[in-house]
Amino acid sequence: MNKLITVGRQFGSGGRELGRRLADELGLLYCDNEIITEIAKQTNLSEGYVNLVLEQKPGHLYPITTGHSFYNIINPVPDQAQSVYAAQEKIIRDTASGGGCVIVGRCADFILRDMDPLRIFVYADAESRVRRCLERVDRDEAKLSEKEMLKKINAVDRNRRKYYEFYTGAEWGNPENYDILINTSGKDIKSLVPAVAKLVSD
Amino acid sequence: MNKLITVGRQFGSGGRELGRRLADELGLLYCDNEIITEIAKQTNLSEGYVNLVLEQKPGHLYPITTGHSFYNIINPVPDQAQSVYAAQEKIIRDTASGGGCVIVGRCADFILRDMDPLRIFVYADAESRVRRCLERVDRDEAKLSEKEMLKKINAVDRNRRKYYEFYTGAEWGNPENYDILINTSGKDIKSLVPAVAKLVSD
Repeated sequence: MNKLITVGRQFGSGGRELGRRLADELGLLYCDNEIITEIAKQTNLSEGYVNLVLEQKPGHLYPITTGHSFYNIINPVPDQAQSVYAAQEKIIRDTASGGGCVIVGRCADFILRDMDPLRIFVYADAESRVRRCLERVDRDEAKLSEKEMLKKINAVDRNRRKYYEFYTGAEWGNPENYDILINTSGKDIKSLVPAVAKLVSD
Repeated sequence: MNKLITVGRQFGSGGRELGRRLADELGLLYCDNEIITEIAKQTNLSEGYVNLVLEQKPGHLYPITTGHSFYNIINPVPDQAQSVYAAQEKIIRDTASGGGCVIVGRCADFILRDMDPLRIFVYADAESRVRRCLERVDRDEAKLSEKEMLKKINAVDRNRRKYYEFYTGAEWGNPENYDILINTSGKDIKSLVPAVAKLVSD
């Protein structure tokens, strides 16, 4: 059984839920936001800023510690993004070396490529993603219309694509970068898990 | 359980073997070349010509019965290709209506779209496809070099892509047209079958 599983996913496709349930089913560690917490610790940056760095291409970022006025002196932007990325890479590799785990997003498929992980990509049509996102909105969050939600989904995915392509040089969601791609349109994630678990454990 | 399964595949990816084994595993009818035989019967064309029509875009075909000299008079080429395609469509729909089946290629995913088949696409990297093709060459066939085999594979897939896109208006191998995509690079097809069967039967 391949004990390293990476899950790339479109926003709203249920990829995160699939990853979590898969980890439960197979008794593997599930890694997601704890990676952010760990990066923040190692880099002395806030979790919010780490998140921001990891959602955008380095070229678009400004350092929160130095501010714009220092930009022309030492151009620290790419360095800071690179150090966040380096910390993330180390944490992901350490986690993967420690035993089996499921890692969602974060270019883990690329970072762990020499460890031959099973690389899953989860996607769905726009209608299903909008519905899934509208259903899971927190009560405290402003309620978006379907159109606004679709705009948000597309914006998040645009950043994921740019980030993935910037760091890996490969195309996000292109079948050749994955072992299996799963369309969750109109599907219940829970019901997909046993079959995906079998695919992993055979 | 979804009893209608369509399998699109890159040449040399093992998609046909996967389809056949899946049909065996699930006790479903397997449809492949028998469709050609049936089309030939219904259209009074040779199986070889039917095969040719079904591997190319209609615009590239010349009718074997009338020859080039009649081309400008009645332009029968698209009609003949269309009648082959219509016969194929009817046979695929009749087969699908008769109970469960696995149909490999032939735009079956598109033809049966209102019957909600499980649409699988099988692909692999070039190296794996060349190796698979070289291993399965008939003893009577001329032995191709790896380079020649890759050229043949690319030519076949170019035609499959054109044909699929001409008739369906959709992109061949694009994840959004399938439910699950499976990368068979370096994989033993037989070992994938139980998990894919579970995905279908859940």
